[in-house]
Amino acid sequence: MSDQIAKITVLPGDYIGPEIMKAGLAVLKTVSEDEFAYQIDERPFGGAGIDETGDPLPEATLASAKASDAVLLAAIGGPKWDRAIKRPEKGLLEIRQKLNLFANIRPTSISRAMQKYSPIKQVEPVDFVIVRELTSGIYFGQPREIDDYRAIDTMHYTVDEIRRVAQVAFEMAEKRRQHVTMVDKANVLATSNLWRRVVEDVSADYPDVTYDTSYVDAAAMKIISAPEQFDVILTENMFGDILSDESAEITGSLGTIPSMSRGTTGPALYEPIHGSAPDIAGKGIANPLSMINSVAMMLRHSFDRPDLADEIAKGVDAVIESGIVTPDLGGQATTDQVTSAIINQICERR
Amino acid sequence: MSDQIAKITVLPGDYIGPEIMKAGLAVLKTVSEDEFAYQIDERPFGGAGIDETGDPLPEATLASAKASDAVLLAAIGGPKWDRAIKRPEKGLLEIRQKLNLFANIRPTSISRAMQKYSPIKQVEPVDFVIVRELTSGIYFGQPREIDDYRAIDTMHYTVDEIRRVAQVAFEMAEKRRQHVTMVDKANVLATSNLWRRVVEDVSADYPDVTYDTSYVDAAAMKIISAPEQFDVILTENMFGDILSDESAEITGSLGTIPSMSRGTTGPALYEPIHGSAPDIAGKGIANPLSMINSVAMMLRHSFDRPDLADEIAKGVDAVIESGIVTPDLGGQATTDQVTSAIINQICERR
Ligand SMILES: CC(C)[C@H](C(=O)O)[C@@H](O)C(=O)O
Ligand SMILES: CC(C)[C@H](C(=O)O)[C@@H](O)C(=O)O
Repeated sequence: MSDQIAKITVLPGDYIGPEIMKAGLAVLKTVSEDEFAYQIDERPFGGAGIDETGDPLPEATLASAKASDAVLLAAIGGPKWDRAIKRPEKGLLEIRQKLNLFANIRPTSISRAMQKYSPIKQVEPVDFVIVRELTSGIYFGQPREIDDYRAIDTMHYTVDEIRRVAQVAFEMAEKRRQHVTMVDKANVLATSNLWRRVVEDVSADYPDVTYDTSYVDAAAMKIISAPEQFDVILTENMFGDILSDESAEITGSLGTIPSMSRGTTGPALYEPIHGSAPDIAGKGIANPLSMINSVAMMLRHSFDRPDLADEIAKGVDAVIESGIVTPDLGGQATTDQVTSAIINQICERR
Repeated sequence: MSDQIAKITVLPGDYIGPEIMKAGLAVLKTVSEDEFAYQIDERPFGGAGIDETGDPLPEATLASAKASDAVLLAAIGGPKWDRAIKRPEKGLLEIRQKLNLFANIRPTSISRAMQKYSPIKQVEPVDFVIVRELTSGIYFGQPREIDDYRAIDTMHYTVDEIRRVAQVAFEMAEKRRQHVTMVDKANVLATSNLWRRVVEDVSADYPDVTYDTSYVDAAAMKIISAPEQFDVILTENMFGDILSDESAEITGSLGTIPSMSRGTTGPALYEPIHGSAPDIAGKGIANPLSMINSVAMMLRHSFDRPDLADEIAKGVDAVIESGIVTPDLGGQATTDQVTSAIINQICERR
């Protein structure tokens, strides 16, 4: 990678998507100066894909993503396409499957500086990661049917699907606080019982990592009552969807959280965890931090440039500390002001 | 009902179960004096059922429940039966199905007096009810299979199953703040799409009740960020399991919350929402309020005695106000002290 030019497919998407993508790319440009060579290929996706080609994941967009070293996505969807035959979200499910992005990784952290944003009283510093299975389970299982009398969805998992995502979780735990909590509903679901068997098995390969399990209902409580106790949460697709959004909420700073979706080989995809926020689109007040943090996450994980990622992280921290934040964090700054402040911080430190 | 003797099947269950059941029955006896004639039939269930008969739901227990006017359950399960072939929880799933208890109703409230217990900063008074479908969905759908390579669970719903529980939700909303929020994952699941069709249809019969929908991931956030906005939440079995425990957690007073599971005809079942708390069993410090509130809920809904339910509620409120609470609520009172204080309050007011 390092002696080549990195190829990044850029998917600005809908509503605030392009606004925050612009911010992310401006910061990428700043840290890359003389340091990191890349070229971007911007493509329509989601609602923008539907508008241009009738498809939320146009063929040329998928081809670009497949040929890339990493994909940056801002946010998609919104009321404009509520009645579309194939809705923007379908594009998201499809790109996950076509790029085989089976592990979705979401950091949840509440640092001392961010405690004031958390809706939780007396919260301890929190720092955990959710590893969510992303390309199987009830999202993709067959049969999926609906008629006038009944409907069916199928939660299906194979040993291999569980093993590969479990390995991602244990590898992450090795580099963190060496603990994995597997969240399931093994007192009800057959698939959860398979998860327990496979994860138990995988855990044997990571002797330094301790491992326990929690039912999903109990985990939903503990995320509120004792989030500081988690290190890596490993879970299936649907539970991960619910718990990762719940986890984001306890930080009180949704607008700052990035995510990574990856496979074993091929490009990973980086995106903010929030949506396209139609209500504030065009107002110039969207929080760019989630997108900027997504850029940092990409530099760290896809391009092995922790140095550049750290530069961004320091810039972001300094700007938050100085109170230059958008309205969602109680400030009055615009997207551009936050972005410029971060760029200034990065330049000053060089 | 009123000119007969009410038949109540009592299932104390495991660990703290018998301790709190004793408290609940003592309060029932107090308010019933000269007011309400009942007889109780106490039966083994859960771990106690396994110990006595090898089955968590012994035949005689089921027969008693079927012949009753209402069932009071304390709590079941625990480490003692972790390796049982048929675990205590199976008994719970079975009794729900055999009594056709398709609607699980869980109040979530944070009154001004209880705000201090909530882990949420600046929480507004909250008062909503979750109506969870309880006898279908992925808990009971077939096929459910596991072998060495893969596992399958099936989420299955029929129109009739959705309609009857939706009617329960809309009827409750009519008597409350006239709003139903249906929680689903209609951007992914076929079953959610059937729910939307049927609930839309049912809503037409309740013109005074407004109706909206929320994706389950968004609902998991809103339960933390804006719980005061909910009135009645209607949802399927698995989502209800997760969201109702999350909701309980935001009250900070799990040990006080009762629940009701009901069908169209036949006995309803009342139980605390928490488990059997093996860690504090035998210490005499289990919070009896959830059981006592379950007794009140039974008097109100199964026996049409809101007067007696209100007497209990007033006694409970007064005792909480006076600070006579168990350690889970930050107090030092024992189960017996809390119970006696409530009984005294009820007697004094008569
Ligand atoms: C849009 C939706 C299909 C998607 C999901 O459920 O996976 C979203 O909620 C997410 O978490 O990325
Ligand atoms: C014990 C378990 C099977 C049960 C459920 O998931 O329904 C419990 O969590 C509940 O909510 O009553």
